[in-house]
Amino acid sequence: MSVQKIDVMTDLTEANERLAQINKSRLDSHGIFAVNIMGTPGSGKTSLLELTLDDLKDRYKIAVIEGDLATSLDAERLKKHGSEVLQINTQGMCHLDANLINKALDRFDLSKLEIIFIENIGNLVCPAFFDLGVHRNVVIVSAPEGDDKPIKYPVMFRETDLFIINKTDLLPYLEVDVGRMKRDAKVINPKIGILELSCKTGDGVQDWLGWVEESMAQAEPRSN
Amino acid sequence: MSVQKIDVMTDLTEANERLAQINKSRLDSHGIFAVNIMGTPGSGKTSLLELTLDDLKDRYKIAVIEGDLATSLDAERLKKHGSEVLQINTQGMCHLDANLINKALDRFDLSKLEIIFIENIGNLVCPAFFDLGVHRNVVIVSAPEGDDKPIKYPVMFRETDLFIINKTDLLPYLEVDVGRMKRDAKVINPKIGILELSCKTGDGVQDWLGWVEESMAQAEPRSN
Repeated sequence: MSVQKIDVMTDLTEANERLAQINKSRLDSHGIFAVNIMGTPGSGKTSLLELTLDDLKDRYKIAVIEGDLATSLDAERLKKHGSEVLQINTQGMCHLDANLINKALDRFDLSKLEIIFIENIGNLVCPAFFDLGVHRNVVIVSAPEGDDKPIKYPVMFRETDLFIINKTDLLPYLEVDVGRMKRDAKVINPKIGILELSCKTGDGVQDWLGWVEESMAQAEPRSN
Repeated sequence: MSVQKIDVMTDLTEANERLAQINKSRLDSHGIFAVNIMGTPGSGKTSLLELTLDDLKDRYKIAVIEGDLATSLDAERLKKHGSEVLQINTQGMCHLDANLINKALDRFDLSKLEIIFIENIGNLVCPAFFDLGVHRNVVIVSAPEGDDKPIKYPVMFRETDLFIINKTDLLPYLEVDVGRMKRDAKVINPKIGILELSCKTGDGVQDWLGWVEESMAQAEPRSN
């Protein structure tokens, strides 16, 4: 008789994948467009969300799910920008997963929302392994982190829809080859979109807002 | 009868802790001083090691264990600086652990070494949970990542001996309160040492080199 085995890691990923599909159906049934924003600590995830909420909040009903290890500092920042914000503290866990998002969705009145932004834990590695069931995945890297980030953290770039290069205002003071970052990202994932912007000066932020609205139209979640 | 349980996470950490103690004894028995360098992607871990090897290589016999997800780009950079470099590719795993270091030590002639620097995976979360059995743990954050990093990633700062703030040359172009970073780090860990430096201009790098030699003297691993 052959021995049957259950692989624990595969099981973990499978469980996450099932819950991600449930999240996706749930969002779609309410016509909600959801975006997962990942990136290194300090790459500008919260700053970009602040600008995004300021611009879109009068046209769309938006909520933010804010993932952090311990504090609610980013949630407090975002609450000042007129949208509903839900804080998830992972107690040290290095990524958000589909189950956490599932529980977060329970806390909203989904019939009253059109967009949900998720700010993942600041980490260029682990969040890439956990599908949350959203419509788009975004990774932000800031220019001062150096031009070798895509090639050194390929998993994150492989399944991501958009790569944002932030803090371009600092480029004059850096030895960073933006062309290399873009080329490497395209080699890893030929379908990845790329935007350069500066949350500080606002340069390029309109392109990001345009991308959000275009992606929303393409995703066409069913209206409720 | 009561049910006995084995906690998988506790078991994992315990296994790591035992192997870390074995690493420590092994290093001490050869009189080798070992430093684990952690930090975000792009914080300057490799750049600092390049400067460190250039300065110390004529006085000490040094090896570097270079942790990366996938590439050997950093190892190639470091090899140009005259020390032995061993690459560990974690195949996507988000941290180094004591077992990987144990296997890495097998690959060196330990009787011929005095210092081992370990460059961990670029990640401000997971490496903090895995003791490698070294004498000192260092975390590098670069100024452009923002002044909220210690408070938002407290686990990393809690058990670390030295906090390096890199890329201070960019401070004139940033809205970053270095005083806040330092205060927060000291609240989380009153014993943490703090150094500010710029790998680009070289400012403060001598303080780091001084710290390495002082720590080496304090650690006093038994000579073989």
